[in-house]
Amino acid sequence: MKLIECVPNFSEGRRAEVVQEIVGAITAVQGIRVLDRSSDASHNRSVITFVGDPMAVKKAAFTAAQKAAELIDMEQHRGEHPRMGATDVIPLIPVSGVSMEDCIALARELGREIGEKLQIPVYLYEEAAALPERKNLAAVRRGEYEGLKKAIEKPHRHPDFGPLRLHPTAGATAVGARPPLIAYNINLDSSDVNIARKIARSIRGSNGGYPSIKALGVLIKESNRAQVTINVCNYRHVPLSRIFETVKSEAARYGVGVSGSEVIGLLPMEALLDAAAFYLRLQDFHPGQVLEKRLMEGEKEGR
Amino acid sequence: MKLIECVPNFSEGRRAEVVQEIVGAITAVQGIRVLDRSSDASHNRSVITFVGDPMAVKKAAFTAAQKAAELIDMEQHRGEHPRMGATDVIPLIPVSGVSMEDCIALARELGREIGEKLQIPVYLYEEAAALPERKNLAAVRRGEYEGLKKAIEKPHRHPDFGPLRLHPTAGATAVGARPPLIAYNINLDSSDVNIARKIARSIRGSNGGYPSIKALGVLIKESNRAQVTINVCNYRHVPLSRIFETVKSEAARYGVGVSGSEVIGLLPMEALLDAAAFYLRLQDFHPGQVLEKRLMEGEKEGR
Repeated sequence: MKLIECVPNFSEGRRAEVVQEIVGAITAVQGIRVLDRSSDASHNRSVITFVGDPMAVKKAAFTAAQKAAELIDMEQHRGEHPRMGATDVIPLIPVSGVSMEDCIALARELGREIGEKLQIPVYLYEEAAALPERKNLAAVRRGEYEGLKKAIEKPHRHPDFGPLRLHPTAGATAVGARPPLIAYNINLDSSDVNIARKIARSIRGSNGGYPSIKALGVLIKESNRAQVTINVCNYRHVPLSRIFETVKSEAARYGVGVSGSEVIGLLPMEALLDAAAFYLRLQDFHPGQVLEKRLMEGEKEGR
Repeated sequence: MKLIECVPNFSEGRRAEVVQEIVGAITAVQGIRVLDRSSDASHNRSVITFVGDPMAVKKAAFTAAQKAAELIDMEQHRGEHPRMGATDVIPLIPVSGVSMEDCIALARELGREIGEKLQIPVYLYEEAAALPERKNLAAVRRGEYEGLKKAIEKPHRHPDFGPLRLHPTAGATAVGARPPLIAYNINLDSSDVNIARKIARSIRGSNGGYPSIKALGVLIKESNRAQVTINVCNYRHVPLSRIFETVKSEAARYGVGVSGSEVIGLLPMEALLDAAAFYLRLQDFHPGQVLEKRLMEGEKEGR
């Protein structure tokens, strides 16, 4: 079963009825499941998580962008979060049975369709970026909606698809592809936040650690315990087991133990199967041995 | 999503066309997936693994038993494996969204239907047993098809459903409910099979270990390595992590290491999620956080 996750961000976090109409446009597409939705009033922004097969995801993302263009006027939009369009970003994430390349190809098809049919300029970002400097979303969105009105005319800011001017109400949209991001926290049995900070530095890319790892050391007030809070941006490059064991051994170097870890929100089954396979030293294991996985893939033949 | 696994055993392992007709009757039921099928000529027996929602599983199991009664004549059947009927056993196994109690209730409905509509005597066994002495399938099947012809007349051998005599060609059928069985092997970095045997004794129920664990020490010829080969009959009672860690520490007592472990065939996702949660010390984790699990359950609401 081919599954892609899509997590579009819309520039509306206050008018519940508008968000509901956008969600409605997504759920109306056959084969689509909305897994999560959250709106933030101060950011005036909503994030919707849905999954489905590639064609259904493309259709749902397009109709959602169309609906957002009808209902959201960027001329009126105010909010803390950086944004450049009614549908601000559309990341596509491979979940099962599809490769990153599939998601990149789909991002380009979707971007072309939004650009041409909705006349909204589209920038490809992250893994789908056509230009290296557009891998970074912040660079693509520089100047935000207001600044991009003029900046878009400069050749190096020209969109990848659609007109060379912002849509009068919907602005511009970034469409990209990326691996699933896992929000993973590891708790220390210490209240010394400096130890958590040192451990965070030892694993994160910005200090010479794993390039796909972002990490901070924080103090959890409720428990008065230090925590290493981590974004795992590519669990295939750095599995949870390696992160957990590295943090455990770094903590031991300070005479501190690890009391536990937490996954915040959703994660792909594979990330936990990998951890089980690592610790149980599983040999010749493949995910098709998992009953539920076999079911999703709809295989008819057994071992 | 409610899912039950059903693994019926049929007394035909030689005539491929007969097995194919039975598989056809199962796959003809909407919502059923056949995951595995295997036939053994010397046992003259076939095992078919399929899954679906409770009502579909009940329908598929019934039609399969009906088809087997048409095509298999126990008067002609010879084979090494103990058997008492054309459809010899029908175990129902909870996979997701259903409890053991649900499977027990379904086993009784299915048993009643086979008994009354097909006039085949049915014995409830394992978790579904109505009498404690019938929990053990071997006790239910004692005497096999030939011996049961007379024995069935004795009150303590009367079936739970259906006529008080064997079906003239289909014999009798055992219908039961049980947890998923996991075939799990742990490999030692030693060729001393006696160490594997001692470890097997230390964990299996028959020697005072875990009641739901069956284990043997064997020598794997190809690798000339000793192996503890295990049937995990209730992974909720004894998780894989506890088995692996126990075998590891028992092996260390003999100065031997564990080179790895293997899962043979299929296992429920939960068994591996439990292992990941154990080793990563996950706090506040629930399977609904797994993207694929969330999908199967068809939840529309997020965290």
